Amino acid sequence: MLMIVCDGMSDRPAKDFDRKTPLQAARKPAMDAVARHGVNGVMDVIAPGVVPGSDTAHLALFGYDPYKAYSGRGPIEAAGAGLEVRKGDVAFRCNFATVDKSMSVTDRRAGRIKSGTAELAKALSGRKIGDVQVMFKEGSEHRGVLLLRGPGLDPRVTDADPHHEGKVLESKGLVPEAEKTARVVNEFVRMSHVVLDKSPVNKDRRAEGLPPANIVLPRGAGSLGELEPMPRMYGVKCAAVAGVTLVRGICRMVGMDVLDVPGATGGLDTDYKAKGDAAMRALDSHDFVFMNVKACDVAGHDGDFRLKVQVIESIDSMLEGMLRDLHEDVVVVLTADHSTPVSVRDHSADPVPVAISGGGARIDHVKEFDEMSVASGALGRIRGKDLMPTVMGVADRAKKFGA
Amino acid sequence: MLMIVCDGMSDRPAKDFDRKTPLQAARKPAMDAVARHGVNGVMDVIAPGVVPGSDTAHLALFGYDPYKAYSGRGPIEAAGAGLEVRKGDVAFRCNFATVDKSMSVTDRRAGRIKSGTAELAKALSGRKIGDVQVMFKEGSEHRGVLLLRGPGLDPRVTDADPHHEGKVLESKGLVPEAEKTARVVNEFVRMSHVVLDKSPVNKDRRAEGLPPANIVLPRGAGSLGELEPMPRMYGVKCAAVAGVTLVRGICRMVGMDVLDVPGATGGLDTDYKAKGDAAMRALDSHDFVFMNVKACDVAGHDGDFRLKVQVIESIDSMLEGMLRDLHEDVVVVLTADHSTPVSVRDHSADPVPVAISGGGARIDHVKEFDEMSVASGALGRIRGKDLMPTVMGVADRAKKFGA
Repeated sequence: MLMIVCDGMSDRPAKDFDRKTPLQAARKPAMDAVARHGVNGVMDVIAPGVVPGSDTAHLALFGYDPYKAYSGRGPIEAAGAGLEVRKGDVAFRCNFATVDKSMSVTDRRAGRIKSGTAELAKALSGRKIGDVQVMFKEGSEHRGVLLLRGPGLDPRVTDADPHHEGKVLESKGLVPEAEKTARVVNEFVRMSHVVLDKSPVNKDRRAEGLPPANIVLPRGAGSLGELEPMPRMYGVKCAAVAGVTLVRGICRMVGMDVLDVPGATGGLDTDYKAKGDAAMRALDSHDFVFMNVKACDVAGHDGDFRLKVQVIESIDSMLEGMLRDLHEDVVVVLTADHSTPVSVRDHSADPVPVAISGGGARIDHVKEFDEMSVASGALGRIRGKDLMPTVMGVADRAKKFGA
Repeated sequence: MLMIVCDGMSDRPAKDFDRKTPLQAARKPAMDAVARHGVNGVMDVIAPGVVPGSDTAHLALFGYDPYKAYSGRGPIEAAGAGLEVRKGDVAFRCNFATVDKSMSVTDRRAGRIKSGTAELAKALSGRKIGDVQVMFKEGSEHRGVLLLRGPGLDPRVTDADPHHEGKVLESKGLVPEAEKTARVVNEFVRMSHVVLDKSPVNKDRRAEGLPPANIVLPRGAGSLGELEPMPRMYGVKCAAVAGVTLVRGICRMVGMDVLDVPGATGGLDTDYKAKGDAAMRALDSHDFVFMNVKACDVAGHDGDFRLKVQVIESIDSMLEGMLRDLHEDVVVVLTADHSTPVSVRDHSADPVPVAISGGGARIDHVKEFDEMSVASGALGRIRGKDLMPTVMGVADRAKKFGA
């Protein structure tokens, strides 16, 4: 099975482009071939009228109920940064920031600090606050993740991050059960200031006239729902090719082997061929290979119709090469995680097109892969969390219920 | 957003009319224009195979789960009569009736009493039974509503109304928690007889040889579920143009501004132009305007195919005038609350057609608005309670779940 998710590819008719969507305007023989040789439909990734985030969308595409599996972005970021998130852990997204002597934030991103955060993170990680173990990992630039592990933790706490310049906030428990967690967070923030303020990294920064990264501000607390790993849930070995940290985090969380592909950036400059080749190679050793291509979403957020058409055509070229070498028994799934219409410049609630070909897939009358053409296909209108079971069915790996 | 619900418009193929539905037989260029410029589908207003009532259907169309929001018709009738129904209140539909000296019902509708019920209602309302406040309001003819407010009330009680001639029934609690409510109902019924029997209204009726309206018979107990008002749920200001009391009651209950439109009767003689003009004016001051046109349902209940076609064409003329003045950014929703096939002369479980145009709506290949044409549209098959979220999405007012 090969699932290709073109991030934000789905769109709306554009007034200035003959009321076509970018998919309708693009030349995309490979995508059309998937549609023509398979079964097509539209998909509400979360539910009708719900705008999917990239995180909740991917959870749904992998077969999870996002309302049960998702509780804030912290755990996904932590997994993306390579920390193993266990049930009961509470995780936070964090910024390295600059505070003055009165603990007022003067720069929420510590001058978008570029280097030295690995050393700062190491100084914070591995400590204990009472019976709670503290793990900390740097991310890109000023970003990091905090993972707390210990008895009686609860993610229902407020942010210490004030989200703008001004006083560092005291984290508060939103329920009595979360008061211990809030105390640990506050103690961690105080400790981070004491430890980081005297770090050699910040001595150097001060010498260069740069704002010191002398505090950590946690936000977006969350913990994992009961998340059965995909390999156990479906009995398949899973690999992921994805450039974006958030998506990589989700893939790791659900038990996929997340591959490193040099040149696959998650941006407009990504190396499509390298991604395609990596996915093809992964099919030799894995039952299910997931691939996320981010660039459409970037073009959608930029509101650039022509760029989005170009990106679609680049993805199509990559797909053309892959399809050439693909055995017809491989089930190919082509879809998007959400719509990012160029007219909206953000995610929208519009359903996404989906095509499934190969393996035992039926073949309907749909000839083109776009939002409107697929809608009259034999797949009808499905929900995101029904996609994986459907794909497993087409691949003859679905379970029987009853006798 | 403008939602036009043509009550009972949806139908089945008619044997005597070339197996066409009234929608297929009617000339309706405006409805077809909405379909042609938008996205189309069919909708199970409640669920497949469930025959919607007008009350449950409208709750679903407004985005509520009717199985949670609906508990008997009493509260809706009370809201329709202008009483404010609060959480914890128990409301009943009532008849003014005639009983003899042995408390046997001799006329369940007190000779379909036409006048004087306002005076009778005033004599009953505002009293207290123990710690329970009694509110009573007359409706049309022999109808009225009873609203009880106080601690420890529960709607799970049986009717005092015997539903035919014979002994007035004792209301009984179906669960121990409802026994207090049953006692209050029984006390109210006894009190209503004592008060009404000696009323000057009934003295006059007796003098004219008319049956006295000397008792009130409550039935259909219900209380409100947790019903978040639409303006809070969706963050939009809502107005309603509707003639029928029941629909007006629901609109009031969900927090819409219910407009009074002279000439809008909710019958076959309704002033379509006045309704259309009122809805268009309401769009200047409201984000979401709902409009119910009842006449199709009346024609369906009468089993009159030709009349239903005529009514559809009248609605289409109204719609044509409205569309002329409508900005393309206004999202237009055209649908029905249920089917009332002329061959059935009652509501049926058949799904209803729905078209959404304007705003960010996609444009599919559907060219005509009827039960069969819309079914291959890009909206697919949706549930009634998914309609409002879908419309909010097309209007770019949907909420994001995740990041």
